[in-house]
Amino acid sequence: MSDGKAAIRLKLTLAYNGGRYAGWQLQSPDLTQSTVQGELEAVAARIAGRPVRVHGSGRTDSGVHAEGQVAHLDLPPDRDLDWQRAFNAQLPRDIRVLAAERVDSAFHARSSATGKLYAYTLYMRRSLVPPRLHGFVWAVPPLDRAAMLEAARLLQGRHDFAAFENAGTDREGSAVRTLFSLTEEPGRAASLLCPPEWPVSTWFFNGDGFLKQMVRNLMGLLVWVGRGRIAVETVPDLMKAGRRELLPSPTAPAEGLTLMRVEY
Amino acid sequence: MSDGKAAIRLKLTLAYNGGRYAGWQLQSPDLTQSTVQGELEAVAARIAGRPVRVHGSGRTDSGVHAEGQVAHLDLPPDRDLDWQRAFNAQLPRDIRVLAAERVDSAFHARSSATGKLYAYTLYMRRSLVPPRLHGFVWAVPPLDRAAMLEAARLLQGRHDFAAFENAGTDREGSAVRTLFSLTEEPGRAASLLCPPEWPVSTWFFNGDGFLKQMVRNLMGLLVWVGRGRIAVETVPDLMKAGRRELLPSPTAPAEGLTLMRVEY
Repeated sequence: MSDGKAAIRLKLTLAYNGGRYAGWQLQSPDLTQSTVQGELEAVAARIAGRPVRVHGSGRTDSGVHAEGQVAHLDLPPDRDLDWQRAFNAQLPRDIRVLAAERVDSAFHARSSATGKLYAYTLYMRRSLVPPRLHGFVWAVPPLDRAAMLEAARLLQGRHDFAAFENAGTDREGSAVRTLFSLTEEPGRAASLLCPPEWPVSTWFFNGDGFLKQMVRNLMGLLVWVGRGRIAVETVPDLMKAGRRELLPSPTAPAEGLTLMRVEY
Repeated sequence: MSDGKAAIRLKLTLAYNGGRYAGWQLQSPDLTQSTVQGELEAVAARIAGRPVRVHGSGRTDSGVHAEGQVAHLDLPPDRDLDWQRAFNAQLPRDIRVLAAERVDSAFHARSSATGKLYAYTLYMRRSLVPPRLHGFVWAVPPLDRAAMLEAARLLQGRHDFAAFENAGTDREGSAVRTLFSLTEEPGRAASLLCPPEWPVSTWFFNGDGFLKQMVRNLMGLLVWVGRGRIAVETVPDLMKAGRRELLPSPTAPAEGLTLMRVEY
């Protein structure tokens, strides 16, 4: 800051409906589709009176939702106000600041993160996704849940997850990550409980970090196991093979995925 | 039917997200916005090979949602197939046929109906509606729930509800209707249960029939009672006055309303 006083570092906790956005990350200027980061930076710049960079805990892909994404930004020290209210008054309604807290300047949304919780929602009746869930689920046929839970058990823990990383990453260093838990909750669509007659379920991926599209690739594998197209017994070998091209399962669609929480 | 065989009368149970539609009812041909009835008739015409009229249990306003609207239509007797599948394959994803049953030709979606259940969802923190609920709630300030429940008790029963009918109706006959029950469920957004920390609640209007915008006017009154702008004691007089212009409360916005069920 030019005036010598320390900037205010803010931690924002964010929810958004990713349906209308080309993901979290700013696009190159010739692209016209909006991004969540772009919307936040536009509002931050109006508040600060100068351009402001907003740092997310990580990118979310186009169409991915959030109920607890975290970002940080620095504002001039004289801009001390009700941040949450100021942001929500100017942001589009499909992006909400759930909390805005002043944090120490050592806090960094990405590098301080110690864990993340993702939710992935399946709807197990293809042609009949309730309109209320449209855009928030992957519609699949009925699945063998026991086989999927067995595969989930094999995926949990500390592994090299390179097999579940899509190309185009800028990762430096190891692909070893710890999946603390991979659990399923029937009747749930992310944080919402559905009527008991809806064949919906959400898979929760709780880990210390995730590679590019790792959750979507894990979910694709689980669904292929549930459809009987991949035998549970082959899961450890697919993981060990370490190459996405060797996975016979698809990357699950973005719209079923929600970033629920970032831990620090 | 020209071939002398009786038509197939179908009863459709429908869910839709009303956000994209100019309501249920077909618009005059110069209007370009789509309607739910229009989408259904377009698909029915493709199935039948000729124009088909689809009769709803009643109109829903622009922006109103449904989880159990009912409609009927007649199809040529030689078009006996998996109706539900045929409709869902061709309808937009925000309209779903939940059930398609062959019914007796005496069945009429509107005139055979004996009751309806509507849900109206409030979110009691204005600037912080979760993106997942955006378009499905009325965002209001915190409300006096006890006063609202007392007003709801006074509104229940058999009354002349003309005071809650908006202008422009084509009603013939009496405005007397029976509101079997008017109840509230905290933590719920229509059929979805929300996390306990969300200040959301749904009001359920169960009656033998509803006048034009009656639910939205009742909800507007309840919210005005909850905000302390209308005293509970005056509710019976406002009802007896019998004229919408005398109600100081607004018509609640369409987007919070969902037609949950039609009884026959």
